[in-house]
Order: sequence, then structure tokens, then C-alpha cells
Amino acid sequence: MRRLGEIALIADYLAPLAAHPAALGLKDDAALLTGLPPHGLVVTADGLVAGVHFFEDDDPGDAAYKALAVNISDLAAKAARPLAYTMTLALAEAPTEEWAQRFTAGLTRAQAKFGIALIGGDTVTARGAWWISITAFGEACPRGLVPRGGAKAGDLLYVSGTLGDAALGLKLRLSEAAFGPHVPPEHRKFLRGRYLYPEPRLPLAPALASEASAAMDISDGLALDLSRMCQASQVSAEVWTPAIPLSEAARAIVANHCDALKTILTGGDDYEILAAVPPDRASAFEAASLAAGVPVARVGAAIAGAGAPSFKAADGSEIDLPAKGFEHFKV
Amino acid sequence: MRRLGEIALIADYLAPLAAHPAALGLKDDAALLTGLPPHGLVVTADGLVAGVHFFEDDDPGDAAYKALAVNISDLAAKAARPLAYTMTLALAEAPTEEWAQRFTAGLTRAQAKFGIALIGGDTVTARGAWWISITAFGEACPRGLVPRGGAKAGDLLYVSGTLGDAALGLKLRLSEAAFGPHVPPEHRKFLRGRYLYPEPRLPLAPALASEASAAMDISDGLALDLSRMCQASQVSAEVWTPAIPLSEAARAIVANHCDALKTILTGGDDYEILAAVPPDRASAFEAASLAAGVPVARVGAAIAGAGAPSFKAADGSEIDLPAKGFEHFKV
Repeated sequence: MRRLGEIALIADYLAPLAAHPAALGLKDDAALLTGLPPHGLVVTADGLVAGVHFFEDDDPGDAAYKALAVNISDLAAKAARPLAYTMTLALAEAPTEEWAQRFTAGLTRAQAKFGIALIGGDTVTARGAWWISITAFGEACPRGLVPRGGAKAGDLLYVSGTLGDAALGLKLRLSEAAFGPHVPPEHRKFLRGRYLYPEPRLPLAPALASEASAAMDISDGLALDLSRMCQASQVSAEVWTPAIPLSEAARAIVANHCDALKTILTGGDDYEILAAVPPDRASAFEAASLAAGVPVARVGAAIAGAGAPSFKAADGSEIDLPAKGFEHFKV
Repeated sequence: MRRLGEIALIADYLAPLAAHPAALGLKDDAALLTGLPPHGLVVTADGLVAGVHFFEDDDPGDAAYKALAVNISDLAAKAARPLAYTMTLALAEAPTEEWAQRFTAGLTRAQAKFGIALIGGDTVTARGAWWISITAFGEACPRGLVPRGGAKAGDLLYVSGTLGDAALGLKLRLSEAAFGPHVPPEHRKFLRGRYLYPEPRLPLAPALASEASAAMDISDGLALDLSRMCQASQVSAEVWTPAIPLSEAARAIVANHCDALKTILTGGDDYEILAAVPPDRASAFEAASLAAGVPVARVGAAIAGAGAPSFKAADGSEIDLPAKGFEHFKV
């Protein structure tokens, strides 16, 4: 099987991803972004490592898709419009043509879906697992970016889509028997797809830009990410867990496994939006979300105080969440 | 010894590096770069992997310094002024406080020297060696960027500083006996320092902006990087090797080891500038370089043709360079 050196990989596989004029065909040492957006450039960076953020035997195109999608999710949460990205790709050995084709097919799908193009990067030798590091650029909305730390006591808390699907999908990927033998195949497929293919909520950006006091994407689980929003905003929060939107597949699992709710709250990889919205903007936010085609659900409220957010069960009791979410190299 | 989780590492060690207003204190999910430069943003990305680009037992501050310096070198070669950077840092385990102090001390030194600040990034779990991936942003000069592919037949070729020191320093690092027992300690120290601490030629940027038809930094050896400039410019080139500027330490080694010249031409890690300058701009370029305090030497010329650049010895014979330079995952 033919293997590709660095030069062939760039010229034959990566350059076609770089149709953006700033990329200079990936033939120079740097990119040149001109026509810069009037309200600023939103910049975000996320790295993904095989065996940490995705499985080593995942399709490389799926891994590449996810690497770009998680960056786009940050842009969406900040109400920015995707413009361009750089990528550093590290491989332990020269890739085969088939690997390069699958890898770039995933990026091509993601680029088309998110309206973004590669403008530069680096290819290096990995020692250990292969990895991708992306820095993505977006056009800022007129107010700059929707901050993480702008929530006020009294604001209503919304989340987009459904939560926990990816975390449940990951558990099923790790063990088919995770939730017993009765999880139907179509639910397995759906949950696994939610883990593999995050759906950045770009259409929600205008609603966030005009109505939200704070927003972030949920990447490490609602429990940890909400605590981050609260800390940055110097508020606390209450979540009424029965209001957390769940897919049919997640609902079926929760019905039979009460512990699954903790997985949903702390598991991570949702890439849905958490937004704080002042009560007098709530109906405008809901209308704008509806118009954008992104379902949102009101799950709680920011409250005065400095404590960790509390998660209430249907009977009003507080749910104890021992692990608050995912942190890299936790001590 | 106390170890740091991701949250403590960011808040206590990385946030102090992010004094730039765009960084938002590293407390948000993205950075917001405003006041964007009128002629565009030059964007470059370079990743460094322990055991590939630096030694696993190098001081982590030296590795961090080098990671930032090699990105700044690209900005300098494109005649851009450093503005800000993002960094993805991957560690196999929670770092000790001592490690974090040394790592950030190196970045602090580099930031002060190059006039740049951290504005965002990501910290992740590495599987295998630790690594750093940086994307750096610079203010474009009025003409945009000085391209790699702008050389014309007849242009004179210049290099800055002295070449090969880092490659010789690496050989000495790999084997103290590399060039026999008679390499004096001060030469060893100098060459090793040139390997560890690249000196991006930022002061040369105005001379490049106003006088050079093409420029790039020499990171993979003059032989390979000149062939890249020639290919991008659709020219060939002739280099008169006796004109290649060598440090006293390199000169002493070449005098006793004729093979050392090949190491100098193909070894890489120079981070000096290669520039093509039209003959009628040569005296202006030399004067501007002198005024900037960066020594430059005329080493050859671009010529019509499509062949690989040729390297002539003092007697006019052609030097055969079996390995043209460093390529990642070569096949």
C-alpha cells in the first residue's frame, strides 16, 4: 500500500481543503487573512487525541469531523460566524493513501456543513497516539462575543437540543451491555451517532447574540459547565432536572437505569448550548430559536449566591453529583 | 510534590501569560481580537513534540520558548509584527508545580522578547510524549506578506546570521564525541544554545517588507527550504557555499570535518531568514539590514530553470547533497 510523505500529504490531500484565498494554496509559510470582520475576530482552539477524545479505531474522517465540529461549537456559543481554521496534524508514521482519503473526506464534510475552510497549519511526527489541534476563527457579532460570565441572578437557563446522548453513546461504545440487553438497535445507533457527530448549533447564534446574557457550549457535562458559567458570572443556579430535554433513546434508558441521569448530567460531549436569558427576553429568545429551527428548553434559573449549582429531582430533593464533569489530568 | 489539575494549571499558571485584552483572562470559551490590523492578519501554526522537536529531558521552559520562537520566526520571515497566539498543551499526566513554573517561565521570557501574549488555547491529555501546538497572529505589513514564491531569475539570495549552528549543536547533543574530542567547551555551549534558543529575526521585517521579492525562514535546512522557495517561485538557484556565513564554532568544525558542511546545509533548526532581493534593491536591503542590526550575507542567486538548486564548492564543483533536508514521516 502506498504511503504518503509530508509533502505529498499536504499537496495532494490538504491543499484541496484550503480553497480560501487566505490559505495561499498552503504553499507559503503563513496565511494572510484580509477583509477582517468589523466587530472583531473570535478565536478558539481545541485539540483531540486518539484514545482520549476518540477511539483509535474510529474512522479518521469521523475524528477529523469531530475535531472541527467541537471548535465550531465554541464559535456558535459565542454567536460568531465561522470563517477559517488552522490545523496541526501529528501522525506516528506516514499515512496510507486510504487513511488520507478518509481523513480528508471527514474534513470535507465538516467544512461544507459549517461553511469554513482550512487556511494553514503544520504536519508533524507524533510520538504515541495521533492527534489534531485546531484553531478556528469566526466573525464576531456586533456586541463582540456572548460571554460565559454575563449571567445575572434571575436569568432563565436554557439548553439546546437534548442532553446526555453522547455520554450514553460512549458508555454503549465501551460496553454493549452497559444498559442491559434491551436497548433497541436504532437507539444504539442514534446515541453512538450523537457521540461521533456533534452538531454545532450555528443557527442559534443570532438568537444568542440578541437575547442571551451569557452562553457557552456544553462539552464537559452540564454540571461542570454550568458551574463554570456560575463562577464566571458570580451567581449560583438551580436546575429542575425533569425539564432537561432528553431524546427518546435517553428517556428509555433513564426509565430503567436511574443512575443514567448522572451520566447525562456529567458525561460530556453534548456540544449543545447553555444560555442565560433575562426573563424579559425569554419569549423573544424562544421565538428566535424556533425560527432558527433549534429546539431549546428552559431548565432552571440563575440565583444569587456563590455555591455550586443545585440539581433538583421531580420531588424537589437535591441530586448528589459526586463527579461534576470531565477535567483533563485531574489530581 | 503537589500536582496541578487542568483548572489550577490554567488559572494559576497560564492566565498570567494572557494579559492581552483579547484573552478575556482565559475565563471564556474563546478570545475576541478587536482593533484588527488594516493590512490583514498573518497566521502561522507550528507544533512541537517531545522526543521529535526537543528532548524529553530538556527544560520544559526551553521547549516552550522554542515552540513560541519557531512561530515568531515565521511571522518575521513574512514581515509581520507579532500580536497574539493560542496554544494547545498536551500532557500525559498532571504536572507538578515545579514543571508548571519552569514551563511558564520559558513562555514568559519568550513573550517579553517577542512582544506577544497568549490569548487562548486548550489543555488536553496526551497519550505518549507531551506536545505543544501554537497558532500565532501577526500584523501584516502594507504589502500583505512577503511571499515564499516571489523570487525572480536574477534576484540575489541572502541569508541572515550564521547557518548550521543548531544542526551541529544537535549532533553534539546526540553525541559529545560527534566532532572529536577537540571541540572547545565554549563552542559546544554556543552551538547547543543555538539549537535550544532560536532567534527569530523580527528586526529584519521592515527590510524584507520594503526590499525582498521572496522570503521564508530556514527551518528544515537551507537545501530543502531553498528548493521550496525555488519551486514556489518557478526558478532555480545557485549557491556559492564559501559565502555561507558560519560562526567561529561552525568554522572550526568544518575545517576538520568536511562532512560537516552537509550537516550545515541540510540539518535544519536554523530559524534564520532566506530572502530573494532584486539586484537594484540589494544595496537598500543591505543598508536596512545593517540599520536593523541583523547581519545578512549574499550567498547566491536565483536563476531561470526548474531544476533543484545547486550548491557550488570553492573550486566550482557541485556538492552532492543526498538528503535535502528534514521532512516529517518521509517515505
